[in-house]
Amino acid sequence: MRAYDIILKKRNGHELTEEEINFFIKGIMDGSIPDYQASALLMAIYFRGLSKKETAQLTMSMVNSGDVLDLSSIDGIKVDKHSTGGVGDKISLIVIPLVASAGVPVAKISGRGLGHTGGTIDKLESISGFSTDLSKETFFNNVNTYKMAIAGQTANLTPADKKLYALRDVTATVDSIPLIASSIMSKKIASGADCIVLDVKVGSGAFMKNMDEAIQLAETMVKIGKALNKKTIAIVSDMDQPLGHEVGNANEVKEAIDVLKGNGSEDETCVALTIASYMTVLGGAFDTFDKAYTYLEKVICSGEAIDNFKKLISIQGGDPKVVDNPHMLPQAKNHIEIKSDMDGYINSINAENIGVAAMLLGAGRRRKNDPIDHAAGITLVKKVGQQVKKGDTICILHTNMNNWNDAYHTAKNSFKIGDYQVKQTNYIHKIIQ
Amino acid sequence: MRAYDIILKKRNGHELTEEEINFFIKGIMDGSIPDYQASALLMAIYFRGLSKKETAQLTMSMVNSGDVLDLSSIDGIKVDKHSTGGVGDKISLIVIPLVASAGVPVAKISGRGLGHTGGTIDKLESISGFSTDLSKETFFNNVNTYKMAIAGQTANLTPADKKLYALRDVTATVDSIPLIASSIMSKKIASGADCIVLDVKVGSGAFMKNMDEAIQLAETMVKIGKALNKKTIAIVSDMDQPLGHEVGNANEVKEAIDVLKGNGSEDETCVALTIASYMTVLGGAFDTFDKAYTYLEKVICSGEAIDNFKKLISIQGGDPKVVDNPHMLPQAKNHIEIKSDMDGYINSINAENIGVAAMLLGAGRRRKNDPIDHAAGITLVKKVGQQVKKGDTICILHTNMNNWNDAYHTAKNSFKIGDYQVKQTNYIHKIIQ
Repeated sequence: MRAYDIILKKRNGHELTEEEINFFIKGIMDGSIPDYQASALLMAIYFRGLSKKETAQLTMSMVNSGDVLDLSSIDGIKVDKHSTGGVGDKISLIVIPLVASAGVPVAKISGRGLGHTGGTIDKLESISGFSTDLSKETFFNNVNTYKMAIAGQTANLTPADKKLYALRDVTATVDSIPLIASSIMSKKIASGADCIVLDVKVGSGAFMKNMDEAIQLAETMVKIGKALNKKTIAIVSDMDQPLGHEVGNANEVKEAIDVLKGNGSEDETCVALTIASYMTVLGGAFDTFDKAYTYLEKVICSGEAIDNFKKLISIQGGDPKVVDNPHMLPQAKNHIEIKSDMDGYINSINAENIGVAAMLLGAGRRRKNDPIDHAAGITLVKKVGQQVKKGDTICILHTNMNNWNDAYHTAKNSFKIGDYQVKQTNYIHKIIQ
Repeated sequence: MRAYDIILKKRNGHELTEEEINFFIKGIMDGSIPDYQASALLMAIYFRGLSKKETAQLTMSMVNSGDVLDLSSIDGIKVDKHSTGGVGDKISLIVIPLVASAGVPVAKISGRGLGHTGGTIDKLESISGFSTDLSKETFFNNVNTYKMAIAGQTANLTPADKKLYALRDVTATVDSIPLIASSIMSKKIASGADCIVLDVKVGSGAFMKNMDEAIQLAETMVKIGKALNKKTIAIVSDMDQPLGHEVGNANEVKEAIDVLKGNGSEDETCVALTIASYMTVLGGAFDTFDKAYTYLEKVICSGEAIDNFKKLISIQGGDPKVVDNPHMLPQAKNHIEIKSDMDGYINSINAENIGVAAMLLGAGRRRKNDPIDHAAGITLVKKVGQQVKKGDTICILHTNMNNWNDAYHTAKNSFKIGDYQVKQTNYIHKIIQ
């Protein structure tokens, strides 16, 4: 078998076999296939696509390139969730205690990663003492006892995906649906999940800017899941404006607490409950989505949800008092209010630009080892559809930096204010299962 | 400027600017752009193509990556020819003395290269003493005095093309019309030609297997020539069966001599006269193709053509007596006749397989520094359309090897014999100017 023939075959639009895909991934990992052949194949895949079968094979080939987490010592069906990423997306913080409250085990493996804000782990580390550096035994014990635990990714999870992603990143082959889909699914499967709920974001703050592509990506991932016998449901949810009111790290924890207490914003609550409901259905706790949703709403009303979050904080070494005293979270030195220049209605808030502004304030990382300021972020006082008067505060920047000029203009320009009230879009656009 | 953005732009189907193309070629040469980015761009070009403007820019960028031969000290319009390669293609040997006889200077730079047989230089080196290792002065003096000289390529001609070609060869991006066209044209232009006649072969023994692609390639090269102010004419000629009766090195010289003496086969003579005529027209010796053709036919009849070939041999250090005594050319030890198994008509001769058989007999090179056996080759006794009886010799293998079994079967299977006489195709399919 030769790498050349595999590139030629894909270039000519033919389907690669399992053996060819494994040969290529193995060759990339052991260095017998040089990067210039890998990038040529990636570009051919960009143009020709991958069939359902090829995408599933590529996913498994990447899973097998590294360690696969064995969660078999945890009782029950292990359900994971994944978001394709957005601005103000603190859903993971909310669904872990919610799903656990229904008795479905959540063995969450999360990353830090690059982005406008930190990852789920960074956000949780805003809480004094909270650690995701758990031993395997503690992680498994906590999931068995409390139905929840969160830990950082091991070093050797899907190394082939890491290598391919690095190459895609410099050869303009990132935005290929089958490559994105297999990359995401390989990480979830290597993390040991039995079932997966995917949150595909669509809109100005998402990787997928338009609905067609978002649906395609969601469908492709659900098909991979089916092909590999992992029950998978995808929701396509709105990311045209940021989710909720808080963007950052500590302030996203604060908003997650609000949702778990029943005081969350409508959009944040709706998306979190939808994802948590599907997770509990896949986990076997309920036979219908509606039953799950009703149960989880009650869990919030009764205070069980927030108690479970306190428990999560405790068992991971954090101080649960933060739940009742959010001021214990890191606080920024400067709070800068941005005010509306005119009367009108918020017509749109460019989510990506709000994300960039948050990063400029110190909330995110540009490079892998950049520090994160947990206190930095943005509070969106007004959201799409709301009325504003000239001089009203539309958002507040939180930062420890003294030079917040760029962030100010970026955030301010993210708001489009018009004369007429626009209809707010749905929070959930589509369910694919 | 970043390589990434250039790849993305081409991937998305947009036209690259002169600056972007130059930046890329420069980056490939100085190592600032890694091979994996170059191969991603090549694959994107394979799918998206290049505009007329981009193809011309790429050609010039590759020309400027190395030395450009300055032929300005040679009087007159310098006309070069190029063939995309075929089996039994000895046209260059014939046109050099023919075109020179019309007073048009031929400053021929040729290669050895890989292939079923050697290149033009290898073929001429079958003649005892013939050398293409000329000093610049001798080369220029000979062209000024005798209107002809042939020398090997300098090391630093279009190094960017060499580098890109090596990468295309291992990433399945060779067969892209704009990349082939710019590669060929860059070498011709760097060799100092004012005008170029291109012989694009089409058929089983050619790189271009179908007519549409051959015409596209011819048109693309003519457009490059026009864009860069180099008068260019392309002919599309037949390579569905080998050209003429001889395939090899010494035996191709022998057939070239036959053509120059007026005893050549119809196809070989027709293609050679057509190319030589266009060369003399571009070189300003005649105002119409017909006048040129008539003149060159006379040059053959009068014996001037073969005398000029003797002169070429002499001035390059060879023994011109070979012209009247072809048995002085290297002779193989073994001559194996292949006979027809049946009565019928030759319906086709797969030219590529005849080429492979010739290589198996020792006539060609697989790797750059492989030796060549000048005596090895194949004589096609019968050609398409001719009648054969069972037991008639259809071709003869010439070799110094003792194991010619594979070559025998490959050559024999190249002949398809049927009950009905097929019509012979045209030698020249199209002229593009």
